[in-house]
Amino acid sequence: MTNLSYSNFNFKITHRDSSSNARIGLLKTPHGTIETPNYIFCGTKASIKNVAPAQMLEAQTDIILANTYHLMLQPGEDLIERMGGLHKFMQWNKPMLTDSGGFQVFSMGHGSPTDEIKGRAQGHVNKSLLEISEEGAVFRSYIDGKKITLTPESSMNIQRKLGADLLMQFDECTSYNDSKEYTAKAMEMSMRWGDRCLKQFERHDNGAQGLYGIVQGGIYEDLRRTSAEYTKDRSFFGTALGGCLGGTDEEMRGIVEWSMPYVHPDRPVHFLGIGRMKDVFTFVRMGIDTFDCVIPTRLARHGVAFVKGASGETINLKNARYRNDPDPLDADNTISASTDFSKAYLHHLLKAKELLGLQLIANHNVATINRLMRDVRLAIKSGTLDDLEKEWIVE
Amino acid sequence: MTNLSYSNFNFKITHRDSSSNARIGLLKTPHGTIETPNYIFCGTKASIKNVAPAQMLEAQTDIILANTYHLMLQPGEDLIERMGGLHKFMQWNKPMLTDSGGFQVFSMGHGSPTDEIKGRAQGHVNKSLLEISEEGAVFRSYIDGKKITLTPESSMNIQRKLGADLLMQFDECTSYNDSKEYTAKAMEMSMRWGDRCLKQFERHDNGAQGLYGIVQGGIYEDLRRTSAEYTKDRSFFGTALGGCLGGTDEEMRGIVEWSMPYVHPDRPVHFLGIGRMKDVFTFVRMGIDTFDCVIPTRLARHGVAFVKGASGETINLKNARYRNDPDPLDADNTISASTDFSKAYLHHLLKAKELLGLQLIANHNVATINRLMRDVRLAIKSGTLDDLEKEWIVE
Repeated sequence: MTNLSYSNFNFKITHRDSSSNARIGLLKTPHGTIETPNYIFCGTKASIKNVAPAQMLEAQTDIILANTYHLMLQPGEDLIERMGGLHKFMQWNKPMLTDSGGFQVFSMGHGSPTDEIKGRAQGHVNKSLLEISEEGAVFRSYIDGKKITLTPESSMNIQRKLGADLLMQFDECTSYNDSKEYTAKAMEMSMRWGDRCLKQFERHDNGAQGLYGIVQGGIYEDLRRTSAEYTKDRSFFGTALGGCLGGTDEEMRGIVEWSMPYVHPDRPVHFLGIGRMKDVFTFVRMGIDTFDCVIPTRLARHGVAFVKGASGETINLKNARYRNDPDPLDADNTISASTDFSKAYLHHLLKAKELLGLQLIANHNVATINRLMRDVRLAIKSGTLDDLEKEWIVE
Repeated sequence: MTNLSYSNFNFKITHRDSSSNARIGLLKTPHGTIETPNYIFCGTKASIKNVAPAQMLEAQTDIILANTYHLMLQPGEDLIERMGGLHKFMQWNKPMLTDSGGFQVFSMGHGSPTDEIKGRAQGHVNKSLLEISEEGAVFRSYIDGKKITLTPESSMNIQRKLGADLLMQFDECTSYNDSKEYTAKAMEMSMRWGDRCLKQFERHDNGAQGLYGIVQGGIYEDLRRTSAEYTKDRSFFGTALGGCLGGTDEEMRGIVEWSMPYVHPDRPVHFLGIGRMKDVFTFVRMGIDTFDCVIPTRLARHGVAFVKGASGETINLKNARYRNDPDPLDADNTISASTDFSKAYLHHLLKAKELLGLQLIANHNVATINRLMRDVRLAIKSGTLDDLEKEWIVE
């Protein structure tokens, strides 16, 4: 079994909440140390949609991710490696994470990406996924239709070339509609794949990267425990909660409850693909250290802005009520996109299909989520998380 | 006849080139003084496409414009006035110009905007323009199909509400295919419209705005002279060269040659809608003080970047030759978009349809044109314009 030291990495818990499992941590990577809980913004194809790196810094962003699946297809991991790796390619000099590629392979395979795994779709409508075997997964590229095999070893090799700080093991993501039997078999294979990932990771380890194991097991309590214990017993640097996360908020909470007692207590825990504002409060209390979700930039593309205290977390700036609204999105944020422009102007930009509107709202959403995370960290330290939640979240 | 003083405005020629009619000027407006020759970037619908105001400032932009035609239709001049005027609405606190709305009314009327007036189309395919009369023009809104009448008076009223520093008189824009007879009649009407504009402007003049007269007359030498002399004899603050500017570079030069001797020698001269890099050199030498053109941001939307010394002024980053190019667009520019990202990264963003690519290239193009204009001003002062042109322009 591998025994990796991750000597350039560290996770130190500096404070624990007295009334929940919330904790403050310092997550050290070769590209800097971030304080947790924190939010990892999605730069899917090596770009945070509509937000330049300089703007991400202005919005006080600590960490971003990119998707292995998209980048291996275009422009390819070899080109990114030749260009000096993802940090240099994207011009992002702070911590960065890549996923394994598995999530997209399996969810796109299911026809409707994300929906299926999150429990919102009907059944297997297998579009691009050709085969799942012990070796790995075979799928068709959406770029040129080529057959591609992704294995634990190739996922590690690709992520090594991409060069992010934090990597994810390759795992099979099951869907809400999979039986317990299927989910258990997939989980067991994901464990064997995890071991192969560790072995391959060790073979090329140069100290620049840290590997996360992923807790699978779908919506089944005993499977989640088994999978969590597996990750604890292996020399992963961090733990991620992944796979099918249930169809309702309650199921999602259940999955985290079942997993958290059995993950390694001293490692950072990442919650894959989850990140509404209310999720942050719910799962920070259950011990989650980092979140990632596409919604800050995806909602922006639909004209939707996160606003502290807004009913349902957001406002839709396309709504006619904002046509005459002279107020900015949030005068307490520290970036121009939030404080300088009236909602009337943003409404106009959206109506006029001016891309600047999407840019400004995306900037605002990133800044707002970063502010939320700063507020959350302060509130954990001062024991005022419940009060803070009432300020931010209105149902 | 009106006799406007424009006491908050000024144009002072501070230097003249010894070997051409190029000149350095200081153009003072209530929102600041800019040095000329300069370039006015198009913020058509109250937004520079893909470039935020803060980014425009970083790119060292001095002045922008917005289009009356688009804004009167959406969101409407009354809303912009209630929001404090265009400067506040857009968050641009430096000099700004609006056009009269006429160009779009007449060119969109001709089916293919711009092309017709610039001499590239076939004939009148009248799409939205319903009527031209002494009173003004009647057209259909492209937003809701409503009939709208634009007159010299309403154009002045709308531009007053929009609140830019520099305004344009309302004129009839003729096309390349119009006969001399038609062009002459239209020019004469534009003169009468000019007088009505001056009268209406004077009625509400609060010292915050300066009005430009427009030289019409198509591709006809005697008409250009008549029209130029008209503008000189009226109390406009500045002069613009407009209307049909010919079908070839040679015709365009002719038009400027015929007009410039007869315009007011002490007023700033703006060249409407012209702004390739080589045009800047050609027409600065003929005494043009300001340019405007959509191409810096329009080309960006097609992945095309202005590059000093590139053959034909630009490079197309979609071209496969940039797939592996580790060099930035221009290491001598002063903004991140030009200096930090490899062409390979920009190529990737374009291939991946990531809007960040368009944003970065738009930023680069604006910064490059501003640098060109700074270089041009320095070269006029040092008498080295010919040398500078050889550095920038390669056929």
